[in-house]
Amino acid sequence: MNKLYVIKIGGNIIDDEQNLSSFLTQFAAVKQPKILIHGGGKLATSIAKQLNIPQQLIDGRRITDVETLKVITMVYAGYINKNITAQLQANNCNAIGLCGADGNLIKANKRIHPTIDYGFVGDVETVNSIWLKELLQKNIVPVVAPVTHDGQGQLLNTNADTIAQQIAKSLAVDYEVILIYCFEKKGVLMDANDEDSVISTMNLSSYNDLKEQQVIHSGMIPKADNAFTAVQSGVSKVIIGKAEDLMELISGSAGTTIIHE
Amino acid sequence: MNKLYVIKIGGNIIDDEQNLSSFLTQFAAVKQPKILIHGGGKLATSIAKQLNIPQQLIDGRRITDVETLKVITMVYAGYINKNITAQLQANNCNAIGLCGADGNLIKANKRIHPTIDYGFVGDVETVNSIWLKELLQKNIVPVVAPVTHDGQGQLLNTNADTIAQQIAKSLAVDYEVILIYCFEKKGVLMDANDEDSVISTMNLSSYNDLKEQQVIHSGMIPKADNAFTAVQSGVSKVIIGKAEDLMELISGSAGTTIIHE
Repeated sequence: MNKLYVIKIGGNIIDDEQNLSSFLTQFAAVKQPKILIHGGGKLATSIAKQLNIPQQLIDGRRITDVETLKVITMVYAGYINKNITAQLQANNCNAIGLCGADGNLIKANKRIHPTIDYGFVGDVETVNSIWLKELLQKNIVPVVAPVTHDGQGQLLNTNADTIAQQIAKSLAVDYEVILIYCFEKKGVLMDANDEDSVISTMNLSSYNDLKEQQVIHSGMIPKADNAFTAVQSGVSKVIIGKAEDLMELISGSAGTTIIHE
Repeated sequence: MNKLYVIKIGGNIIDDEQNLSSFLTQFAAVKQPKILIHGGGKLATSIAKQLNIPQQLIDGRRITDVETLKVITMVYAGYINKNITAQLQANNCNAIGLCGADGNLIKANKRIHPTIDYGFVGDVETVNSIWLKELLQKNIVPVVAPVTHDGQGQLLNTNADTIAQQIAKSLAVDYEVILIYCFEKKGVLMDANDEDSVISTMNLSSYNDLKEQQVIHSGMIPKADNAFTAVQSGVSKVIIGKAEDLMELISGSAGTTIIHE
């Protein structure tokens, strides 16, 4: 089977123009089929602030009201998505920027919670992997913004890590999928204060041990859970590390590799 | 040859949620291959105002500085484009929202003018009609925002009427192309104050007469010029009228039809 790289980048790299540009040069140079999923960055928060849209948090979770959804759609699916696409085109990479509504790429369900109204937040229902495969076969590189739709005309804010995981899973029948989560650290660290303490490989049993010992905690847990869901659903492996090290993450000389067994 | 409808809508319909929604229902019902090109609306102006981005006009022309380009990319290629796409999907129309950078759809040159610096404004250089045709053959409906790119990573603000004309021309070899310009009037009027004075058909010679008699003037001239450029370049006909009358424009019972001879 052919390899497919599904690569997710977050706000830390998107917010730094220079770093983003050098990441995109590296990404464009990856010869195998590839998909880029991007999160947001500080721009959405700063635009919301300038537009006097209060950011509501309930139990530490951000609520997406109608005005916040507007900002997210503008910034993520508009500004960030189209700038990344234009830069990839400049690197001879035939990118197309997509949100979940485009070609019915990702249909989601508005999240229903017994006590919290998250607003316009969607949980992924289906990925149009048939169309994704057609694009990949034509050497087109999808660049996916974390905005989905419900099929009834409503756009929804959706977690980019989850989108990456769901896209990776949906193509695991057709490709040997390597899912790469880029974030601000070199990998999963044994010691949060020591960037050189990267855990090179993790399987479910070592992960559970590290959680029990509280080496892995807080923000790392949903990310790692997403990774294990992926490898348990046919994704070949998940690599977690820094966007700046993309080539080393791919070659296996940097980051944390998460495997099924 | 198969018919292809290239339909351009402007701010007047985009700004009215109810009207836009009923237009999109009509548009989705058009059975032939079709492409939608949309302009902007009041939202971009209001967002720019709220973000304290002054709108510069030189000789009555809007200047697209870097901050204005950001707003245009957010609003046109993000908010408007993705909401239209989601609504079309809800009407069982397999739309994908695109700007010129996506799949290198529209490459443009930054406008160079001896005395005026228009900023990030682009004039269309090439349309990727091969890819558009592939999309149309798969029953995919392109929804195009008036943002292009220069191939060097720079996005550019581009006139939507011109984009519609260039897309129509580029597909005239493969389809019998009908280009429809929707605007706030029922068509080209003999008397600007009388909505019932629609000129039903115009060719170049009657257009020149009407210009000479100053029946056609100001804002109508660039629109009509775009229309004549199109019919002189292989587009079968151009119809100008109201978005609300889409079905009648298509059937020929409303609007002004512009033909080559």
